[in-house]
Parts: sequence; structure tokens; C-alpha cells
Amino acid sequence: MKQIEGGVTAAKGFLAAATAAGIKYQGRKDMAMLYSQRPCTVAGTFTKNLVKAAPVKWDQKVVSDRGRTQAVIINAGIANACTGEQGMRYCEETAKEVQRLLNLPQEEVLVASTGVIGMQLPMERICAGIQDMVPKLKDDIISGNEAARAIMTTDTHEKEVAVELTLGGKQVRVGGMCKGSGMIHPNMCTMLSFVTTDAAISNEMLREALLEDVEDTYNMISVDGDTSTNDTCLLLANGMAENPVIEEKNEDYRLFCEALHFVNETLAKQMAGDGEGATALFEVKVIGAASKEQAKRLSKAVITSSLTKAAIYGHDANWGRILCAMGYSGAQFDPEKVDLFFESAAGQIQLIEDGVALDYSEEQATKILSESSVRAIADIKMGEYEATAWGCDLTYDYIKINADYRS
Amino acid sequence: MKQIEGGVTAAKGFLAAATAAGIKYQGRKDMAMLYSQRPCTVAGTFTKNLVKAAPVKWDQKVVSDRGRTQAVIINAGIANACTGEQGMRYCEETAKEVQRLLNLPQEEVLVASTGVIGMQLPMERICAGIQDMVPKLKDDIISGNEAARAIMTTDTHEKEVAVELTLGGKQVRVGGMCKGSGMIHPNMCTMLSFVTTDAAISNEMLREALLEDVEDTYNMISVDGDTSTNDTCLLLANGMAENPVIEEKNEDYRLFCEALHFVNETLAKQMAGDGEGATALFEVKVIGAASKEQAKRLSKAVITSSLTKAAIYGHDANWGRILCAMGYSGAQFDPEKVDLFFESAAGQIQLIEDGVALDYSEEQATKILSESSVRAIADIKMGEYEATAWGCDLTYDYIKINADYRS
Repeated sequence: MKQIEGGVTAAKGFLAAATAAGIKYQGRKDMAMLYSQRPCTVAGTFTKNLVKAAPVKWDQKVVSDRGRTQAVIINAGIANACTGEQGMRYCEETAKEVQRLLNLPQEEVLVASTGVIGMQLPMERICAGIQDMVPKLKDDIISGNEAARAIMTTDTHEKEVAVELTLGGKQVRVGGMCKGSGMIHPNMCTMLSFVTTDAAISNEMLREALLEDVEDTYNMISVDGDTSTNDTCLLLANGMAENPVIEEKNEDYRLFCEALHFVNETLAKQMAGDGEGATALFEVKVIGAASKEQAKRLSKAVITSSLTKAAIYGHDANWGRILCAMGYSGAQFDPEKVDLFFESAAGQIQLIEDGVALDYSEEQATKILSESSVRAIADIKMGEYEATAWGCDLTYDYIKINADYRS
Repeated sequence: MKQIEGGVTAAKGFLAAATAAGIKYQGRKDMAMLYSQRPCTVAGTFTKNLVKAAPVKWDQKVVSDRGRTQAVIINAGIANACTGEQGMRYCEETAKEVQRLLNLPQEEVLVASTGVIGMQLPMERICAGIQDMVPKLKDDIISGNEAARAIMTTDTHEKEVAVELTLGGKQVRVGGMCKGSGMIHPNMCTMLSFVTTDAAISNEMLREALLEDVEDTYNMISVDGDTSTNDTCLLLANGMAENPVIEEKNEDYRLFCEALHFVNETLAKQMAGDGEGATALFEVKVIGAASKEQAKRLSKAVITSSLTKAAIYGHDANWGRILCAMGYSGAQFDPEKVDLFFESAAGQIQLIEDGVALDYSEEQATKILSESSVRAIADIKMGEYEATAWGCDLTYDYIKINADYRS
């Protein structure tokens, strides 16, 4: 497996387009479309929030009833959440417009929205946007990149990744794009993530691969602890690589999962590092755990702690807040056995041993914490399991963005 | 029952003192002492954080083994948490110094600390502080107020309250003080709260009254979702009011609980409203719930949501974030039946009905949200239960305070 340029259009047969539909943002593209030359097998994971946006409900039905798709329509600016029956009708109208233009069954068209909750979509603009995008669909890197940019809300940059691997002698690609960057505390899956592959794989294997992998990737990031109403992750496979169809958990399945994991983890980390207002990606790795569940719970508690996040912003090695967050995580461990380290491109430093502070250099610790990607490692000395969670620092800009998001 | 002036020294026989011990802060008092002329029955609730500060462990033992006390020593600046065996020895040395000066058994001396985690206490200064305070102990309002000020860390003002009631023909008083204001997400009890009463009440009744009441008061507030290592609530009763001893759940017990509730709720609200960097107290009341547990879970999810808190700071009626937080709370309800209102001294406004936005005036909503105390009311139309939670807005100053707390 090797990383290659590109994103959702990297895999064979996938086309993308974007347009400035003027849904809420002015002077930028705010709608994107994905299209596959052949019908795709599709798997999806969605928010566990009880308040589900209309497109989430729509896509859940498409994925479970049909498991097939050929087109996805995405808009940024308005989330189409808390919009009642009207919101559901708008999903249907969107799908109908695609059916009209591309002769695809509307029951197999996926839709996704992100933005302000509670506002209704301007349907004429959505339809005009689709009409504009259809003739523009292209399979090149630029079109994929434009789509990745069009789905951004408060994100500061687009998020894409693609890899190439060989399955049964055939070149297979997996690529994806996603957007953050607030209300990010995925439960099942994150805000919006779209992964495409030309691998030939059965619906059941595709679903299993996705469900298992989101647990270690998107579900291990948090920007602000708020689980969105719109979290959606879609994985489309069109089989155009013509590899032997993956129908069981064989070596090809394992290789495919490895590639999928790289794509998902990369996108998840990009999302965490570009959290609203963030200046640093904050990674927390718990090692020596008695179970994976324990390691996950501990690492997630730390990246979610507002106090720890504020300390990371201040480049302050305030390890007490990390131990404190581990303590209220609900996981059992012995605080008096914990070793804690910070590391980054500027080096590594041990802060505590067996729960008590070492005589470390605050200056060196601050230097390490001044990088744009920092990592805390906690060894709880109870077993062989480990887990990593990704978050970001809590900054003035998070407040700035969210105190005045709607205006 | 009526509210009166004062705090921990309001009840008969309770004395307080404060001193500038120079533990970490300069130019302010940072140690306080409470003393009762007669031995007190004592009840306490403590943090559920697995990482417990040394004074929490010490006090748990005093409360459970002896259930009696006559003196409490409190310091601000250093939390004495994550300090290993040394930290426990310092609690003992503190108690020993009180024993030496006042001839009280060291096993009945309570200690409490708040401040930075991981640093060791300067023991000579602690002892010097005690020596300075003992001769200054006084039962007047000013001494109580000085104690309330001395225990502050990032609090912007002291927090006190006192009430008077009549039990069996005798005047009884209940008064308290507490401090916040970050790492506030109490689980069992909040950071530091001290309530004194001259009521005569059995140890068992005192304990029951406290344990039940913290669930509806301190445990319903949150500043930042971080459950501290030091949360401690102590309730001291010295019996000097000479009311008939409360030994069962009779009418006197009910009246005492009512007074205790008023004191605890007032202190809890003061803590929430003075959360780090806060500009507003944010109260969320969920009504029409099928159970109290459900109402609590929903209201706490909303006051804990970073996005909602940032919107409150921006005076932005971003109700979608409130519904979203209710949705991920884990409580079951029908989002399409929710009515939501905002209210404050500037009036009341309904924003959504049956889950969908009304055509309300954003201008009026912003006016209502511009007060220093704002309330959201969500009616979920499922039953007769309700609950209230208290939090605060999330502001630039929260970041400022916590990005650089230790320096």
C-alpha cells in the first residue's frame, strides 16, 4: 500500500463536481456532487444522536433498503436538521432532481448536509446547483479537491487522502474526503466523510470493514464533545478495479481493511487537527491497558477535557489535568502507577513516574508543546492493550467562531 | 425560613479566620480556618474522581471513622493532589498542628485544598498560617466573609449565604461558603463547599439530608465538564441552637432540609454564575419529563455543551445546539414534540414548537439573552417530572485563565 495524490476521485470511475449555489455562504462553492460510472455497493455509519438530520434519515434508508448508489449530493451552510417533514421532502426533491437529470432511481441517491441547524434549505438553489454540477462532473484530482473544499464550513482547509494497493494482481485505490470542524464528537461516525474505492467487494464485507474501522478512527476524535445531528460516513465501492470480488475475510480483505484504515485515520486526524480554532493536533495514546475499551475510555477523556485542551493551547505541561481527566473517565486504574510523557517533533520528556512528578524541565516541556502536533503517552502498567485518541487545543478562536456562527 | 446576612459564621458557635500564608498567591489571604465552640456532627460528600487529592482521602476517613469535628483548615493555591505519600503526611502534619494549638484530636481535624495539581504544599507556611489564624478566630460576619474570600482561586467574588428558621421553638441557622470556579462538574459534590449549622441533628439524619440534597444542587452544575480531584462538601452541625435533636424524618427534618436546600442551591448557582470567564449564569429547566432522571440528564447535557455555551456568550438564540445536546444526552424523547423557550429579566420568548422553529424575533431573543442570568426551558411533553441544571457561558476569558493558569 502506498499513499498517492488525490481524494474521492482517485479510485477508477469516480467523478466529482462542485458549484457555488449560494445556499448560505457567498463567494465560494458550497455544493458538491459525487458520481460513479457504475453502480456502487455502499456502506454507511451515522450519528447516534437522537436528533437526526433529515439527510441522515434519508441515507440510512438508502443504505439499509438498497445498499446501492451511484450519486451523492452534498451541501454546506444549512444542516437540514430539526426541519420536520419539510426537511424530509427536500431530501426527496433533491434525489428526484438527480433522477430526472441522470436517470438514476431516486431511492439510490444519497444526500448530505452540514451547517446551521433549524433552517430550511432553499430548494430552487439546490436544484439549480445540481443542474450546474451534472455537466461538470470529472474524474480528475482537481474536481475531487474542489468537492472537498465545497463541503467545508468552519474548516480552514480541505481534507483528502488516497492510497493504492494491489489485490489479486489488480491495482485498487481507496480515497476519501471529509469535513469538520465543530460539533465534532462522533458517535458511530463523524460529521461528513466520503470514501470511494474501485475495489470489488460484497455489501456485507464492505459494511463490516467500515463499521469496525470507524470505532478506531472517527469515533476516537473529538473537537468539542458535541455529537452532531448530521454525522455521516459513506463508503462507496464500484468494483471497477476488477480485482477478485472480496466475499470473505481473506488476505485481500485484510489488505483492503489496512488501506481503508489508513484513509479513515488520516481523515480523522485531519479533522481533529483542524478543529474549530485549533492551533495544534493533540494526540493521546494510552498504553499498558488491561483492555482496549479501557485504553479508549482513558484516551478519549483526556482529549475531551476542556482544561487540558486550554493548557495545550498555552503550551503548558499541566499534567495534573490529564491525570484528573483519566480519573473521571470511568475507567479503573491505579493513579499511583501512571507514567506520563509528552512528545512532538521537538523531542520527548517524561513528566511523571508512578503518579508523582519528576523534576523535569518546564522549559523543555513548553518547547515540546509548542509544535503543531503534540502527543501525550500514558502508561498505566496493567496489561498489553493500547488506544489512541485525537483532539485539538481549545482556543480564543473556538469561542470567536461559535459565539457568532450564525451571523 | 428567611435569608439573613452572613455565611459560615452565621450559626451559633462557629468562628472563622483567614490569613495570607503565601502558599502560592502573593498579596492576598490564601488560608482559612473554621472552628466550632462545641464538637460537631459532620457529614461530607467527595469527588468520585478516581484520582483523589490527599485531603479528600483524609476527610473521607475523618467523616466515616469519627463523624465528628471541631476544626477545618483550608488553603488555596495548591491542591495537594497527585502528591503521593508525602501529600498524605502533610494532611496529618496540618491536623497535628491544630491538635498542638487547640488540644483537639488530630483524627477529627478536617483539611481541604484547592489549586494546582501535582505541587507539594510548603508545610512551614501552612503551620505558620495556622498559628496566625488561631488567635484571630471570631464569630462575626466579617471573619466568615474573609474566610470565603481566602479560599478563592479563579473565583471573581466570594460565595456565601445564610438562612434562619425555627425548629421546636428555637432559632436555628444554616450558613455556608464555597468556591469554584474551573474544573467544575461535580460528581457527588463540588470543588469546596462548607456549610455550618447550629441545629441539633443526629449524624445519620445529617448525612441523609446532605447526600440527598447534593444530587439536586451541586451535582446539577457544570462549568467545564471536568470533575475535580478535590471536590469536597462538608456540613457541620454543632447543636448549639438547642432545638429538639432531629433523629427521624419528622417535620423539623423537613424544615431543616428545606433550609439546607436553599443554602446549597444558592451556593451552587453562585458557583455556576461565577464559572471561569463567565459573563452569564445559564439555567436549563426541562419540564414534562417522564422521570426525574431523564429531566436531569437532558438539562445537564445542555449546560455542558461547549457549542451552546459559546452561543450564550454571543447572545445567539442558536436553539439547534440545545436540541442537538438533548439528542446526544442518552435520554429518550421525541425531538418532534419539544417546545423551547428562553427567558430572563428582559422577558420570555418561544423559539420552537413541536421540534420546529417558530417565526420568532431574533432581535427580541438576543435582548433576552443579553442579561447576566438567562434560562432555557424545554417542555418534552412526556410526563410530570422536571429538573434544573446550572452552567455558564464559554468565553475568551475561560481560555485566557486556563491556557496560563500555573504561571
